[in-house]
Amino acid sequence: MTLNKQQLTLNCDMGESYGPWQMGADEEVMPYVDMANIACGFHASDPNVMQSTITLANMNDVEIGAHPGYPDIQGFGRRTLAMTGDEITNMVVYQVGALQALCRAQHTNISYIKPHGALYNDMMSNDSTFRSVVKAAALFKVPLMILASQENEKYLEIADDFDVPLLFEAFADRLYQDDGMLTPRTQPNAVLKNEQAILEQVRTLAESGRVKTASGSYILLEADTICVHGDNDESIALIQKIRQSLYTGGN
Amino acid sequence: MTLNKQQLTLNCDMGESYGPWQMGADEEVMPYVDMANIACGFHASDPNVMQSTITLANMNDVEIGAHPGYPDIQGFGRRTLAMTGDEITNMVVYQVGALQALCRAQHTNISYIKPHGALYNDMMSNDSTFRSVVKAAALFKVPLMILASQENEKYLEIADDFDVPLLFEAFADRLYQDDGMLTPRTQPNAVLKNEQAILEQVRTLAESGRVKTASGSYILLEADTICVHGDNDESIALIQKIRQSLYTGGN
Amino acid sequence: MTLNKQQLTLNCDMGESYGPWQMGADEEVMPYVDMANIACGFHASDPNVMQSTITLANMNDVEIGAHPGYPDIQGFGRRTLAMTGDEITNMVVYQVGALQALCRAQHTNISYIKPHGALYNDMMSNDSTFRSVVKAAALFKVPLMILASQENEKYLEIADDFDVPLLFEAFADRLYQDDGMLTPRTQPNAVLKNEQAILEQVRTLAESGRVKTASGSYILLEADTICVHGDNDESIALIQKIRQSLYTGGN
Amino acid sequence: MTLNKQQLTLNCDMGESYGPWQMGADEEVMPYVDMANIACGFHASDPNVMQSTITLANMNDVEIGAHPGYPDIQGFGRRTLAMTGDEITNMVVYQVGALQALCRAQHTNISYIKPHGALYNDMMSNDSTFRSVVKAAALFKVPLMILASQENEKYLEIADDFDVPLLFEAFADRLYQDDGMLTPRTQPNAVLKNEQAILEQVRTLAESGRVKTASGSYILLEADTICVHGDNDESIALIQKIRQSLYTGGN
Repeated sequence: MTLNKQQLTLNCDMGESYGPWQMGADEEVMPYVDMANIACGFHASDPNVMQSTITLANMNDVEIGAHPGYPDIQGFGRRTLAMTGDEITNMVVYQVGALQALCRAQHTNISYIKPHGALYNDMMSNDSTFRSVVKAAALFKVPLMILASQENEKYLEIADDFDVPLLFEAFADRLYQDDGMLTPRTQPNAVLKNEQAILEQVRTLAESGRVKTASGSYILLEADTICVHGDNDESIALIQKIRQSLYTGGN
Repeated sequence: MTLNKQQLTLNCDMGESYGPWQMGADEEVMPYVDMANIACGFHASDPNVMQSTITLANMNDVEIGAHPGYPDIQGFGRRTLAMTGDEITNMVVYQVGALQALCRAQHTNISYIKPHGALYNDMMSNDSTFRSVVKAAALFKVPLMILASQENEKYLEIADDFDVPLLFEAFADRLYQDDGMLTPRTQPNAVLKNEQAILEQVRTLAESGRVKTASGSYILLEADTICVHGDNDESIALIQKIRQSLYTGGN
Repeated sequence: MTLNKQQLTLNCDMGESYGPWQMGADEEVMPYVDMANIACGFHASDPNVMQSTITLANMNDVEIGAHPGYPDIQGFGRRTLAMTGDEITNMVVYQVGALQALCRAQHTNISYIKPHGALYNDMMSNDSTFRSVVKAAALFKVPLMILASQENEKYLEIADDFDVPLLFEAFADRLYQDDGMLTPRTQPNAVLKNEQAILEQVRTLAESGRVKTASGSYILLEADTICVHGDNDESIALIQKIRQSLYTGGN
Repeated sequence: MTLNKQQLTLNCDMGESYGPWQMGADEEVMPYVDMANIACGFHASDPNVMQSTITLANMNDVEIGAHPGYPDIQGFGRRTLAMTGDEITNMVVYQVGALQALCRAQHTNISYIKPHGALYNDMMSNDSTFRSVVKAAALFKVPLMILASQENEKYLEIADDFDVPLLFEAFADRLYQDDGMLTPRTQPNAVLKNEQAILEQVRTLAESGRVKTASGSYILLEADTICVHGDNDESIALIQKIRQSLYTGGN
């Protein structure tokens, strides 16, 4: 499929198994998402997992995104590693290049790049890290996916310097604050548990590009895609409902 | 430079440093070789070493070859790891793709692939392993460099099935046997120590495509390139003499 | 508990999770086994998984065995790596020492060593590898657990040179051949599927130290412990039945 | 030798080679130091390097210290990895236990623990990290070596809670500030280049327990040992002079 910018797509982290260890229900989730963020071997995945995940994405006509992370498999890329800007650029190029080659072996290609875990967070909180990632993305001439916020413009300006398009992602199940940031996970209400609230958040995003915040107000949030998680039966059922809600969203 | 098939080129393993550890005198050697076999991070090298080695090759107008190995940094890829054929293909594609992306970041590309260490040996002694490597090489549409022997034809036939050209390499300082194989390193005379003998071997290879064996006879050995090593001042001086000998070889 | 040599114990691989990846139902299985073979970080596990698995073993009064493997996490230690004898000894000492220290932090200690996967197989098929492992075990003054076979005596003689006691393990669900070896997994009948057959095999081992082979004959098989696997509900239920059968076995 | 608390000892990082990569001139330096900080395989070294470095220390009657670091070989443990306190404790226990077992295989033992690189820095700047390291050290009943500063008392108090003795180290070639901290390496005068200045700093430390700061004043600095580096001929010659200066210090 071609990404339709008119409509919110669903993206999901995939290919996070490693050697003999399974993670995620990729086969069950793949049919219901539009974009698969495939780990590249530094925080999860390995050449074999990448190859089979690409096959699965191809079979389901799902766009493939490179999902590079810090070199920390044991920590699953969730622990910041104090790397220099050049080190970050080089390791993102390395990972994305590896995935791209495995894609080409199956006559497909990557459509975008979305950093993982601590690298994603560090990129959003540190302009210099963001620039290092953008520099790597520039090489592949594909969009970089980042967190939608009230600061979209700031990131667009930096990315523009390198001719890198951005894709903004919102979260279906995270509570937003008035400044457009996510409520930190350390707070009890950070994650929406109620299915109706989640579906409502998706619908509001899709229909009016707005999101209801912790204070009850609505803020504008420009997003291209929604990040979903498919770890168990319940979450997969929710993805299906979100998808259905999006496709019938305007009615 | 463009590879000149009329003349023997010199290839050398490069980019074998890792993190803070140096290996090889890459800066001193690069000016005297034609092809740099750059390690890809599985048995040596890392994204930063790869990047700076590519820069060095570019500055010296040296062809870049991907030099993938078994995933065993501590063992420097010299220990066979019992991988399946598909695992080998996937990990070669991964490594070569990573190097290729880092090359593209510097507006260059890989020109060939030469496996490293135990993977090289296993590929030469096991047709199924060879096929797995050829399969990976096919994706990149570049030649695969292997050991020149009396069996060149056998390998050409397999590689032909995947449209992969082969480059054959000979060794300047290894004693050949009558069947065209290298004298095993376990034997005391495996490596030529005498400089004149080494230069003579190169000259004979270059001028007549033959090599003098342990028994004193001459056998035909079709080679495109000669593998040299540049670890210390002495070996670098030798490379310079080999090079000089090649460039004035026919006169 | 103290190991009771009069009676067959049950041992099970444990602590095979890694970072965020779960493997095995350790909490469910631990109450039903006598000995936990805990991975040491080279083929699975990490310092945190090791620590919590030791806690779990302690809570259930289960003996702790060090379960060292080849340094190959992605391959789960199932792929032979061509290491020298000294390399094997050093890496076994390293892994067992690491687990031992984590045990001492919880006021317990290792009771035995059982190599994992390819290292286990290589040790059984190569006397020199076996000797390298025995040499490492000697340092810790605990028994080494190996495969029970018709060749128990041969292994005892080697181990005796290093004053290392051996524990022999048999399999509840593998079909034995007349020579006491396991039917290779490449053959369709290698694994017993029928619960009655499995329980019968355990009972025969426990009561008469014999096992029924593929040909229908009975051979002697001297074993101290039986290896069980606890990956899912079914296998855990089976472990419980095996255990019950053992404890009431003699009546 | 037995550590003589009356006199400043010399400690040096050792065993920092890795697989085929050499680092440091361990054989040349070992005869001139009192304490060898041996890397434990997480940021440098491997079981084989550890084994041969222990042999070397034994031959030279040098005390062995465990030198654990963050799990980051490529980065040589110089990059902070955001680990939790428990993760740090577990990984220090793991590393020290591994080295201890390899020591016991050679009838020796570790005498102290000194964290490496970023872990060392993080321990000095973050009390919670310090506590996590102390907790690990407590298990081995050996002193922990840390940076001598004006805050020795603070660290002693924390370590006392776990019954862990401390060893304080000073630097021969680093310029101190009035508050007893090292001048950051980002400043041009951070490292003393002049040999006389270095020997003078050592002498002052040894004779009067004081150090001359950047401002020209003298401050008290209670140290037990001096950290030296032995990477090349020049630095080894300097170590010899420092050693001579210490042994004849009062004259």
